Order: sequence, then structure tokens, then C-alpha cells
Amino acid sequence: MPEINHRVVIAVFPDVDLLDVTGPAEVFTLANREGGGRARYRVRLAGPGPAGEAVATSAGVRLVTDAGFADVDGAVDTLIVPGALEPYADGLRPRVDPYIVDWIRDLAPRTRRIASVCVGAHLLAAAGLLDGRTATTHWSTAGLLAAEHPRVTVDPDTIFVRSGKVWTGAGISACIDLALALVAEDHGEELALAVARHLVVYLKRQGG
Amino acid sequence: MPEINHRVVIAVFPDVDLLDVTGPAEVFTLANREGGGRARYRVRLAGPGPAGEAVATSAGVRLVTDAGFADVDGAVDTLIVPGALEPYADGLRPRVDPYIVDWIRDLAPRTRRIASVCVGAHLLAAAGLLDGRTATTHWSTAGLLAAEHPRVTVDPDTIFVRSGKVWTGAGISACIDLALALVAEDHGEELALAVARHLVVYLKRQGG
Repeated sequence: MPEINHRVVIAVFPDVDLLDVTGPAEVFTLANREGGGRARYRVRLAGPGPAGEAVATSAGVRLVTDAGFADVDGAVDTLIVPGALEPYADGLRPRVDPYIVDWIRDLAPRTRRIASVCVGAHLLAAAGLLDGRTATTHWSTAGLLAAEHPRVTVDPDTIFVRSGKVWTGAGISACIDLALALVAEDHGEELALAVARHLVVYLKRQGG
Repeated sequence: MPEINHRVVIAVFPDVDLLDVTGPAEVFTLANREGGGRARYRVRLAGPGPAGEAVATSAGVRLVTDAGFADVDGAVDTLIVPGALEPYADGLRPRVDPYIVDWIRDLAPRTRRIASVCVGAHLLAAAGLLDGRTATTHWSTAGLLAAEHPRVTVDPDTIFVRSGKVWTGAGISACIDLALALVAEDHGEELALAVARHLVVYLKRQGG
């Protein structure tokens, strides 16, 4: 299979779910390592502020951005959109900030593939990218996604959904399954399995 | 159950595995949220440099430390020790830097509970903390751990092992299972299940 350079951009913003970001980053990195030079994912975190800014995630852990939103020019191979929750009434709801939605909408036409993780689906929906598509999100907000976006067919009982160039993942840990599926699409099942073997062998064993 | 403040310290250092760090951080944070104020985990990343330093992980993603190793004084509730791999011959081996080993050895007597993740077990072993204990690590380095540390009984076919105050976890994603077990020990199975439900429901479903 030819060597392909994949420019992966993961959006980060205040209170973004930590594993939504780090799960896919880990999978792409392991694909580079396990692929013996075949896979060439270059993962960058992009945030609202200038490059090098520290962004506090849901878990308090701070991530340093590699680029500002405005710095992401040219063609993007894969855009990963994680989610954030904010307090609302007596619970939590997905945070949907217009500045992030606008950035995603602008970036989409020059992006080969877009994948949301967990409640990041609400950001894609707000950007109109899920209209007419089937999508999923975290089980706790699936009903809200369907209610707010009647043009989206919500499937709450799946790990991830692919609909054309747009992929949506379910609960937090599903980000790993989704990222493995992206690697499989790019470089075949064998490499995805090598990554999974390195990463989640014990979870699979536990399940089995 | 009484409210308990848990001071959790996660070690970070150059090339540390990203998910080894962020998996447990996410679990403790979700325990705070799902526990309705009952769980009070305060997670801090400690690294070799000054507080606020950015540390580049295995995946390239940079994490900002909350403290330097030398700043961690007084009693620690839970110390999490992740692992790092470095190139060696035609493969990779666990990185065991003396300055990290010395820090762990100094911190151990004033720490209630120590848990390694993945190849972090090699750091605990080098600090002598696994002598006479049963332990596990990533499947790819279990043979090496046993060969280098004959006083450690290595069980390569488990998700995590508890031996007194020292816990060791297996492959990368096992860090989540291990952290859930720590939450269960502190606050009961019900809270750990609530966190798992929020976090890994789809992985469990897939396995089942």
C-alpha cells in the first residue's frame, strides 16, 4: 500500500472531554509505530487561542495546542471533533459554542473526512453537517440530538456510524473503536488489529 | 459513606504513554461528577521540571504539569506511575530513568496506594516496590520484567493485580479498568459502575 501522509486535526476547547482527544491521538500514533513507516499520521491539536496555549479539559488536565483554529489552512485529511458538557438545570448538556461551530463549517469543505466523538456530534449537527445523515452520540444525549435536529437520524445503539465523509462515535471510549476504524479504512484491517492488539487486548479478553 | 479527599498524583515525563496518564485522570474526574460530591479526587500531574512545564507524550500531545516532582510533599493518597518505551536494538523497551525511580522510592513511604500502568511496572520494580509481590505489565514486556526482577512474580495474563498497597495494570487500556477498581475500593462498586456506564458502556456491549 502506498505511503500516505495524513494530516489529522483534533479540536480542543475549554472543558473538552480529555479521553475524546487523547484516545484518537494514541491510536494514530500507534498506527505510525506498528505500521513500520507505512502509516504517516501527523496529529495536531487546534484550539481557539494562539498555538501553544494550554487548554483545560474536563478532567482538569491541560493540553497544549499545536495551532490556533485560524492557523488551520489548506487541505485537512481528518478532522476529529470531541465534545464538552456544561451544567444545565439539574444536569449537564453538550456545549455548543458558535465560534467552534463556525470553524467546523468553514473547515468542512476542505476536509476529506470528519469524525465526531461522544457529544461532539452536537457540534457537527449545529454546523449542518449531519443533515440527512444517520449519526450517533453519547447515549445520555441521543434523545436531545434527535429532538434538536429533526433532519438527523439518530442511532443511539451503536459504537460509531459512517455516513459518507462524516463519522460519528458514541460514548467516550468509543473514540478508540472509531479511530481504529479510520486506520482500517486507510491502511487495512491488519494494521488496525495490530494497534488494537497493542492497545486493548485486555479489554477484548475481558469481554470475551 | 463519609466524604474523603483523595490526593492523586500522576507522574508524567518525556515520552510517557498518553492514555496511561489520561485514562485514570478521566476516571477519577467522572467519579467526582457521578458521585454527587461524595468522591473528591484531586488529580495533579507531576513532572521532572518546574510546575507548568509542557511534557511531550508518546503521541506528541503535550501535557502541562501541575507540580514538579520535588514539589510533591506531605502525604499522597494515590500515586499513579505510567510507562514509556524507548527504542532499543530493533524494538522498544521500557524506559527506566534513575531520577524517576529515585523519586518513586522516596515518595512510596508517604503514599497510601501506588499503582503502575502498562510498562510503568518496570519503574516500580526498579524502585524495589514489587519485590516479593505479584505484578503485571504490558504483555509485550512481561518476560523482560520477570527476567530482570526475579523477586517479582509476574502474571502476564490478567488486567490488573493488587498486592497490598501496590497495584499494577496491564496493557494501556487496562489503566481504565484499574482506575475503576480503585474507585470501587474507595467508594464502592456502585459508583465505579456509574463511571463505567458513562465511560465504556459500548465497549462492554461489544464484548458481550
